[in-house]
Order: sequence, then C-alpha cells, then structure tokens
Amino acid sequence: MNFDEIIDRRGTRSVKWDAMEAVYGVSPEDGIPMWVADMDFRPPTCVQQALGAMLDHGIYGYRGDDAGYRAAVCRWMETRHGWTPDPAHVFTTHGLVNGTALCVDAFTAQGDAVALMTPVYHAFARVLRAAGREITELEMPIENGRYVLDIDRFDAAMTGRERMLILCSPHNPGGRVWTRDELAAIAAFARRHDLVLVSDEIHHDLVYPGHSHVPMALIDGVADRLVTMTAASKTFNIAGAHSGCVTIADDALRARFAGRMGALGISANAFGLTMTEAAYSPEGAAWVDALVEYLDGNRRLFDAAVADIPGLSSMPLEATYLAWVDFSGTGMTRSEFTAHVERDARIAVNHGPSFGKGGGDFLRFNFATPRARVAEATERLRAAFSDLQ
Amino acid sequence: MNFDEIIDRRGTRSVKWDAMEAVYGVSPEDGIPMWVADMDFRPPTCVQQALGAMLDHGIYGYRGDDAGYRAAVCRWMETRHGWTPDPAHVFTTHGLVNGTALCVDAFTAQGDAVALMTPVYHAFARVLRAAGREITELEMPIENGRYVLDIDRFDAAMTGRERMLILCSPHNPGGRVWTRDELAAIAAFARRHDLVLVSDEIHHDLVYPGHSHVPMALIDGVADRLVTMTAASKTFNIAGAHSGCVTIADDALRARFAGRMGALGISANAFGLTMTEAAYSPEGAAWVDALVEYLDGNRRLFDAAVADIPGLSSMPLEATYLAWVDFSGTGMTRSEFTAHVERDARIAVNHGPSFGKGGGDFLRFNFATPRARVAEATERLRAAFSDLQ
Repeated sequence: MNFDEIIDRRGTRSVKWDAMEAVYGVSPEDGIPMWVADMDFRPPTCVQQALGAMLDHGIYGYRGDDAGYRAAVCRWMETRHGWTPDPAHVFTTHGLVNGTALCVDAFTAQGDAVALMTPVYHAFARVLRAAGREITELEMPIENGRYVLDIDRFDAAMTGRERMLILCSPHNPGGRVWTRDELAAIAAFARRHDLVLVSDEIHHDLVYPGHSHVPMALIDGVADRLVTMTAASKTFNIAGAHSGCVTIADDALRARFAGRMGALGISANAFGLTMTEAAYSPEGAAWVDALVEYLDGNRRLFDAAVADIPGLSSMPLEATYLAWVDFSGTGMTRSEFTAHVERDARIAVNHGPSFGKGGGDFLRFNFATPRARVAEATERLRAAFSDLQ
Repeated sequence: MNFDEIIDRRGTRSVKWDAMEAVYGVSPEDGIPMWVADMDFRPPTCVQQALGAMLDHGIYGYRGDDAGYRAAVCRWMETRHGWTPDPAHVFTTHGLVNGTALCVDAFTAQGDAVALMTPVYHAFARVLRAAGREITELEMPIENGRYVLDIDRFDAAMTGRERMLILCSPHNPGGRVWTRDELAAIAAFARRHDLVLVSDEIHHDLVYPGHSHVPMALIDGVADRLVTMTAASKTFNIAGAHSGCVTIADDALRARFAGRMGALGISANAFGLTMTEAAYSPEGAAWVDALVEYLDGNRRLFDAAVADIPGLSSMPLEATYLAWVDFSGTGMTRSEFTAHVERDARIAVNHGPSFGKGGGDFLRFNFATPRARVAEATERLRAAFSDLQ
C-alpha cells in the first residue's frame, strides 16, 4: 500500500495522461493531470493476484457462474454499508455510464425529462442528451460553503414531464455525504413527482472521517422506485474493466431492466467480475481504509494551499477525491482563471460548466495521486495566481 | 502453440465447463463440453505478454487513445482478408451479441421484422425476441450435404415488414464459406427488400484449406446498407473480454449507430483493446495459421468417426470449429438421440432447435479442444450409438 510510489502512466493509453495534451494543450512531459476521475495508484494485491491467476491459467473464454461475485458484492454492501441486497437483484452492467444509460432507456421514453441536482457528474447529462431526453436542472444552493437541498425550489422547477431523478450520493463534484434526513427528503420528492430514483453511489467507499454514507436503499418508502448503482471501479481504481452493479429490489422495475439488458446484449466481462470479486474482500477493505486515510491527507494538503490563495475556495469535501474549487473570488473571467490553471500551472482539470447549472465558477481537481504531485500542483497554483497576492 | 496441452478449466467459472452440469446434467468430472463456442486453448504468447505488461504496470484506469488498436484491426482486415476499412469507421462494442443488439436497436423499431437465414447462430433470435422484433426465418435448403441459398424461396417468405437481414458469414452452424456469387445474391436480395445488411463475420479467420472468406464489404452495391461485425474473440479465444468491432462505411448508418452507442454508454474496455491489438499482429497471424491446421485435423478425426456411425452425418465444414451433425438417419426421436449423446456419451452439445427452422434434427459439436479429447468424444459416440450397428 505504498501510495507515495510514482508510477509513470504516460504511454499506457491512459485517458487522464495521454489525452491531456490533445484536450487541454497541457503536455504530459511536465503537466499534472487532475481531470479524469481515476487514481494513479495500483489496486490492492488481492486484485493483482486474482488477475495474475487468470493470466497463469491463460484461457479467456466465456465466463459464467457469478454466484461468488454476487455474494462478494452483497457481503461488501453489508459489511461496509449496512445494506443487505438480495444477490438476485444485482445486475452487472458495462460500467455505470452504461448502467445510467440502461436506466434511462428502460424507464423513460424519448421526450421525457430527467431531473438532475446540479452541478453534478457530467456523464449524466451527456447520456441524457444523446438519448434525446430533456434535462430538468435542480440547482443546489450553497449554504455554509456546502451544497444543500432546497426542496421548495426543486418542486417549483419541475415541469411535470420528469420520469426519473438521477441522484449522486455521495455527491460528485460537491463531495457531500447526504444525511439520512436529506435522503428522506429526496425520497419524498421522488414519490411526490412519481419519479424512478436512480441513486449513483459509486463514491460510497471514499468517505472521510466524521461522515457516514447511508445507502438510499435504507430509506423508508422508496424501494418501489429505487435503482442503486455501485461499483468497485472508483474505490479500487479498476474503471478500465468497465464493470458496475445495478441493484433493483422492485420486481416490475427489475423485470423491465432485465428485458433491456437482454435486448441490448449486455453481459459481464470476465476481467471486471474477477477483479471486483477479489477487491470486495477483507484485504480489499483494509486497503480502502488506508487509501481513504491517504486521500484525506492529500485533501488537507490541497485545501490548505488553496485557502492560502486569495480568491480561491475549495469546497470542504465529505467524500470523493475530487476537489471543487470556486474561482469567483478572483474577479477573473472563466477563461482567465482557467488559463492560469492550464497554461500557467500546467494542470489539466474538469471545467465547471460541464457539470450543469451552478458549476460556472468552478474547476474540479482530482487529487488521487501521490502526495508529492499534489504538493507540486499546489506550488504551481500558488505561483500561477501570485498576481492576486 | 501446443494445442495438445490439456488445461483444466474446471472451477475457473468457465460457462462451457462449469455450467455444463446445471444445463445438461453432464458432470464436468467425466463429461466433455462441446457446446459453448470457445476453445480450450490459450491465446498466442503475444496476447499473454500484452496482458502481462498491463499486470506489471498495474493501473487499470480509463483507457483512451485507441488509434493503435484501430490501426491493428484494419491492418488485420487488409492483410488477412484483402479488405481495407477506414479506421474511423470502426466501433468497439461490448462483444458482438451487444454489437448485434445495437444494430437492431439503431436500425429497426419495435414491431419491425428482421430476416435470418436459418438455421443460424442462436443469439440472433434471442436478442431479436428480447427486443420485441419479429423474426422472418429464411430456411436454407441442403444440397449435396451443404446449406445453399434459395433466393426465390427467400423472396416468397418475406412479409414486407423486414428492415434488416443478419447474415452469418462464414456460416454458423453450417460451416459454409459463402462464395462471391452467393454474397452478391444476398446483397441483391438486401437491396431488393431495402434491408440493412448486418454481416457477422466473426468466424472469418477459421477457414479451412480450399475455401476463402470474402468480406461482404468487397461486394459491389451494398456499401450504403452494410454493417460488418468482426472480432478477435473467436479467432484468439478471448471472448471473456467482451470486445468486438462494428464497421460501418455509410455516413448515415454510422451516425445513427454512433448516436445509440453514446446514448447507451458503450465504450471499450481496456482488456479487450489491449488483447485485440496484440493479437492482430504477425505473431498472432502465425498462431492462427497453426490453429486452423490443428482444427482441421480435429475436424477430419471427428467427421471420420461420425461417418462410421450409421445414421449420423456431419456437415462438411468449410469454416468454424463447430460440427453440425444430422441425426435424422438414426430413426430416433430428438429426445432419444439427444439422450444418447448427453446421458450415454456424456457430451454436452448445442441443440438444433435453438438455431431456428431446419435445425431440429441436428446437434452442434464444438471440437476446439485438444485432439485427445476429440478422440475420446468420438469413442463415446461410437459406443453410445452401438445399438444402431
């Protein structure tokens, strides 16, 4: 678990590293990629060993019998999150962008609207637009520096055409861990507007001390409209395997989803199943505990440095390795502060507007990288914004 | 390239081995699985090395930059099949069942019909039924022991509701390598009925001496309606990675397909890209040549033994490792001859009816396994059917 180890990812066809120059004009020679949400760490040894065993055996035919995998998924949810899904309710999709897309396809029709609490993970809107669905943006206000719900405002923003709400819990990019009361309010909102509630809980393992993730499945009165999405990909840095879980307790929703999975020919790949089953283990759990502690150190380092730069403000994260930095205090235009980060500090980051309404003044920084690199990034930011001192 | 090596696949969550007992009641302890179409061989060293390099690096984040992969795919099509696709026309789907399903989704609507030349690969019908499409079965007559086209009969079977024809070329399960004239007749048929023509060419590398696969893309007058599906998965036994190619030259069809890929959140997984790129190489090509020679030996051994059993007749294969055996000469009912194979010979096989009209008297035997096992299977068949001698 040496998270300080610098592993060169350049030339490995990593999107984060090798597409940085094409997308941002930031060279991987001296640039720091803090955009794509994967980590510059190896997964735990148990995952490496499971892959190694596949390689030693060396036959990669059709894989079946996912009972052990399903049991591992459910055991993880139970031991880490106090949630006991039925293994028979778990679907394995081609990652969670596909999982989201299958929900949209199964539970909404062309021209329907889908509600998003913005700013939020950009792939939701991308999939919805590609599928010809309207998006109803429920912009979250900021109180005491954190995103909060404003249910009255959300109610007022609804058009009546919405059929689904996609929730990000914990929240990306704001880093909120929604409280039980907040989740109950969201569930009531979904009931009131008769929405399928898709709860994307992919960041549930990356929660900082003092906060505790509550699965939406533990909230009363929502089981008949709930779809929960989880994955080992974010927690264990295995997104390249494109494997995610969609869990649906309601029989009618589950049958519809299963029908579309079958019609679209989605079944699990061997690598994702093997890595996920290995990751969801006691050894994997110990690794996650160490990872979160390390990320917490990175977060504190990054936030302290940002706080020292006049006009910049990093939202206090309760979860995720994605710092959400507000540049509105700089008095700069968006293109000015972005150029300071990309051209001067040579850091590639996600741009706020892609996260929807309310994101305009922000940039998202991924600090899941060895600490020395986070420190280097903060030094560069300090220098790039020295004209503000 | 030791194809004789017996590699124990039991307990590896192989569908073919580990689901055999549940599906057929044939124990993997002493049963021989000749159903699921994967091979009991390791892929070539170049594939193992590419996976090994991934494992050594050990970071499995989001993969991008598939230019090298696309170039390898197109180079393979050019050097092995004399077809030069544009790399920009190649999509990577989640395997070809998903590729087929995406074609159905993109190019047909609920209630439309899709034509299949039967008997044919069972997953086509499975996907079509799950998607709520009608199936128009164009049953192929047998002439001189081989499936042939009867275009007049096909024309007569059309209802006018068909929007697509899914062709299997080379043909599974009949093992036909369609000639250029036959392909031209199929293309003319697709034009006459204004069908999108989906040509599944997944078996194109597994062609026996004396026959030569012609890509449908080389047939005149079909480019504006053609979708070609290929994959390294069958050739190199890497189906577990769920990766396939869908190539579309026509701009309008390609745009529609791309739109549905995006809306359904399908993007390539890192393992499939890496393995495919490594496989489509000169070393991979040499391995395939040796593989086909080995499979040809298995085919001759199997067919000779079957020919010795009164009432059994194996269709002469021009391609594929899937023997298609006609049991109608036994005078037995389907359940009788199937019981002889499964209960007495303890061999798990695919049942003919799942391949559609014309398949009822047949069982499909996968002989892509070390030769000693093929020999053992033939001995068991001989014994099981000794009551016919």
